[in-house]
Amino acid sequence: MTPQRVSLITLGVVDVDRSRAYYRAIGWREHPRSVEGTTFFQMHGSVLALYGLNDLAADLGRPATALGTGAITLAQNFETEAEVDAAVDRAVAAGGREVKRPQLVNWGGYVGFVADPDGHVWEYAVNPFWPLSADGALILPEVE
Amino acid sequence: MTPQRVSLITLGVVDVDRSRAYYRAIGWREHPRSVEGTTFFQMHGSVLALYGLNDLAADLGRPATALGTGAITLAQNFETEAEVDAAVDRAVAAGGREVKRPQLVNWGGYVGFVADPDGHVWEYAVNPFWPLSADGALILPEVE
Repeated sequence: MTPQRVSLITLGVVDVDRSRAYYRAIGWREHPRSVEGTTFFQMHGSVLALYGLNDLAADLGRPATALGTGAITLAQNFETEAEVDAAVDRAVAAGGREVKRPQLVNWGGYVGFVADPDGHVWEYAVNPFWPLSADGALILPEVE
Repeated sequence: MTPQRVSLITLGVVDVDRSRAYYRAIGWREHPRSVEGTTFFQMHGSVLALYGLNDLAADLGRPATALGTGAITLAQNFETEAEVDAAVDRAVAAGGREVKRPQLVNWGGYVGFVADPDGHVWEYAVNPFWPLSADGALILPEVE
């Protein structure tokens, strides 16, 4: 049986120190397992890693210049619009680039996008149709 | 307090049907909440979405051609090398492109990479130092 999971999301970053400073500034706390050149953040059953772009390129056997960003987004969902606004403001204050100011979108959500220092796009959102679990997990609602 | 979580990973894909067929072929089962143009897979407390690249570009206010892939990887961890080999074989049989044949790597893991039809890179790995929880979650070990 194929597990439907992502254990680890790895972001290739030009400057691990710069990137770590950014994620710290938006309030994330790195895990003590972090090592020189790689920073880990424990998430909800999975882990986010910051890793040197050149190291990632070497691992993949590709030139670093061939590694783009953008066609993938990482969404962090919240309960309220105010939380989304605060998250976007925090990210911009930390040096993120606002891609889209939070706004109501046609499917009924409230969504903003901010790119981190390497262009990795984070979506900050409220989805009123998908309430988060008490522990913060996103479990899709049953179909009636 | 900032939650350290990714609720939703969205992959921008050129052809949602092609991409859905690929993920079905490697054994993933879409959630009945999936809608025309967007396919959802329930994961471990979070959700993976396949979404049209043009739609994603429009949401971001960027040209689709500016959206690359590659500087981010999604890892699926397993307990055994045989499981990694099987996952890679399944992905290649489904039309994925083998980026790196599974092999022992210098930090002691066993790692292979396969790109999905849009170039999104999946890492299939065993990390003997990070055993998965009984429920499949990846929780970083305490530091002694």
